[in-house]
Amino acid sequence: MTADLLIRNARPFGGPVKDLLIRDGRFVAADCPRPVAEIDATGHVALPGLVEAHTHLDKTLVGMDWFENRVGPTRNDRILADRNAKRELGINARRQSARQILQTLAHGVLSIRSHVDVDTEIGIANVEGVLETREAMRDLVDVQIVAFPQSGMLPREGTLELMDAALKAGADIVGGIDPATIERDPVRHLDAIFALADRHGKPVDIHLHEPGDLGAYCLELIVERTRALSLQGQVMVSHAYCLGTLDAPRQSALIGQLAAERIAVMTVGSPSAPALPLRLMRQCGLTVASGSDGIQGTWEPFGNGDMLERAKYLAQRNGMTNDVDLEESARICTFGGAEGIGLGGYGLSEGCFGDLVLVPARTLAEAVALTPHRRTVIRRGRVVVNGGELAGDLPAIE
Amino acid sequence: MTADLLIRNARPFGGPVKDLLIRDGRFVAADCPRPVAEIDATGHVALPGLVEAHTHLDKTLVGMDWFENRVGPTRNDRILADRNAKRELGINARRQSARQILQTLAHGVLSIRSHVDVDTEIGIANVEGVLETREAMRDLVDVQIVAFPQSGMLPREGTLELMDAALKAGADIVGGIDPATIERDPVRHLDAIFALADRHGKPVDIHLHEPGDLGAYCLELIVERTRALSLQGQVMVSHAYCLGTLDAPRQSALIGQLAAERIAVMTVGSPSAPALPLRLMRQCGLTVASGSDGIQGTWEPFGNGDMLERAKYLAQRNGMTNDVDLEESARICTFGGAEGIGLGGYGLSEGCFGDLVLVPARTLAEAVALTPHRRTVIRRGRVVVNGGELAGDLPAIE
Repeated sequence: MTADLLIRNARPFGGPVKDLLIRDGRFVAADCPRPVAEIDATGHVALPGLVEAHTHLDKTLVGMDWFENRVGPTRNDRILADRNAKRELGINARRQSARQILQTLAHGVLSIRSHVDVDTEIGIANVEGVLETREAMRDLVDVQIVAFPQSGMLPREGTLELMDAALKAGADIVGGIDPATIERDPVRHLDAIFALADRHGKPVDIHLHEPGDLGAYCLELIVERTRALSLQGQVMVSHAYCLGTLDAPRQSALIGQLAAERIAVMTVGSPSAPALPLRLMRQCGLTVASGSDGIQGTWEPFGNGDMLERAKYLAQRNGMTNDVDLEESARICTFGGAEGIGLGGYGLSEGCFGDLVLVPARTLAEAVALTPHRRTVIRRGRVVVNGGELAGDLPAIE
Repeated sequence: MTADLLIRNARPFGGPVKDLLIRDGRFVAADCPRPVAEIDATGHVALPGLVEAHTHLDKTLVGMDWFENRVGPTRNDRILADRNAKRELGINARRQSARQILQTLAHGVLSIRSHVDVDTEIGIANVEGVLETREAMRDLVDVQIVAFPQSGMLPREGTLELMDAALKAGADIVGGIDPATIERDPVRHLDAIFALADRHGKPVDIHLHEPGDLGAYCLELIVERTRALSLQGQVMVSHAYCLGTLDAPRQSALIGQLAAERIAVMTVGSPSAPALPLRLMRQCGLTVASGSDGIQGTWEPFGNGDMLERAKYLAQRNGMTNDVDLEESARICTFGGAEGIGLGGYGLSEGCFGDLVLVPARTLAEAVALTPHRRTVIRRGRVVVNGGELAGDLPAIE
């Protein structure tokens, strides 16, 4: 366990300046007399660790040769290109996940939920690779692994059994994928993944790109199964674009149903996909998390994994410019993410884990709007990033 | 005039590695024997100077106290807040324009078209302020000034006369604003600004947020007046959101009419406004430019004025992930902007002005996707930014 650390003059979540003390890896009252190491935060905004609630650690090309993207426009084009790339580019899930983790650690990302491909070509090799990285990086970041049938489950026989094997090997969450447009049988797909989750006692996280009324129908099926299996607080729907395109009464009703079953929604705020009604979702008490999705991969060349920049994108996608709205965007990328992926001991209060990110900004809204990069990141009382630079004693990437 | 400068191992617009020579402020053949100063670009991508085709230099709050944004959601709320802020915050147009220019110079922005407010409260003071800055910064950046009736022209008597005075004082372009929703009389507004442009022999640039069919109607009125006054190549429409929401036949027809009169369109690719059909616009031969719009002001807290990042936003808003599409986005923020605002001597060919930006990327698509920040910027053969740092001999901001 690291020594005590006192952070002077920080603004927790943009509030009034105060001192924060971390002892034995957790925040404690800052009035204790024991001598401690000190950092002067000089009034910077202190956030709890940023939460990456949806990415694909096993597929980033960070640090590899430039991938010339000539992939076609459909989701199936992309899935195929993605599967080919794993083979042809020799993407090493262990090494690539480590690269992304260190890159996003510099931004202050301390908790990650990653979907990891499971399919009949690679089996569970990517899950094993990310498990290795998780172990090597365990003192830096929490990683949750979703066993994710990217190439389809029902159409590719043996995938469900591989997902089962992935869970036995250490994956934490059962992944699902477009039950209608990819799986071609929403009831059978959802029945299978909920049964798998029930058998392992694991949460569920479903990629749901299905549009409009088809998406709404799939959401209803998810609600029904969450209720039947008493999985309240254990289910996340990722993307859920349909929520952005339904008419207002339908939208409200469906959001109300999701909230009632404590089903969380993850949105990346993509500029080219329907915008989710963030204000309405908040008013209805829905848990909203966010993520980068894949960064620098064959799907998209973009992305740096900075979840504070992600808060800015969420605000911009929704046309939000007020300080209050920017603060809510920051909340989605911190507390919302933590609740959505079920983190314990999260926050800046006494008793919580001693994790925080100091952002050189005068207010929380400024932190979101300008996303300054020279941040200091503390994990369990240990400074792991200082002014944007990774500490020298972190694990190397081989 | 600066000495000769040889830039070795650059990739002009992402093409094969070559050397570039600047003599007497212009690119010349790189095979001359005279000894010269040298830079090794180490294979980095060389872009011509980035073009900011639409911003508001007089209203940025860069370097000032944080503005707590509590402004209401409508355009009129924002115009009112904006006018109040000029008075209450004491925004100094001369100082603020200089701050934004130096900030964006570091990204490689070497040409700027700025709308500058003219209204019955401040008169032409902001135009005079930006004119002063333009003179002080003339060796660093080209600045075009649009006399812009932000608070409305027809509803506020005396504004047209102030715009006339602004043009006499040195403004370059006649600005227009939503002819229907703000001006309440599209024909009279457009007749007045086109007459003013005709009288002064100046181009026109119109803010057009009008939605759907109303916007299309206003575009038709603009086409008619451009044709009648033979102003082909002299008219830009900024935003033109309506182009993103018309049905396909109407969209194509209108884009064809704009292209026929060589009316350029400026889009910022806002994530919360309709996306313009960039591929179709390109196929129809329309000139497309881009801009940051206001950065860090009372309208929006966001923005850093980086026009390479803007190219990324354009691609993201259109769901473009292919290398070819990213290259086209880069073209909009360089050559498209130059054509749209009518720059002469623009480009990396022999005879063009010796302006370029070296971006540490392996391909043009990578430059757009990752927007690396440690750029080197050369203006007329002089290094004004080195690895992201402004040169020491630039004009100070008082």
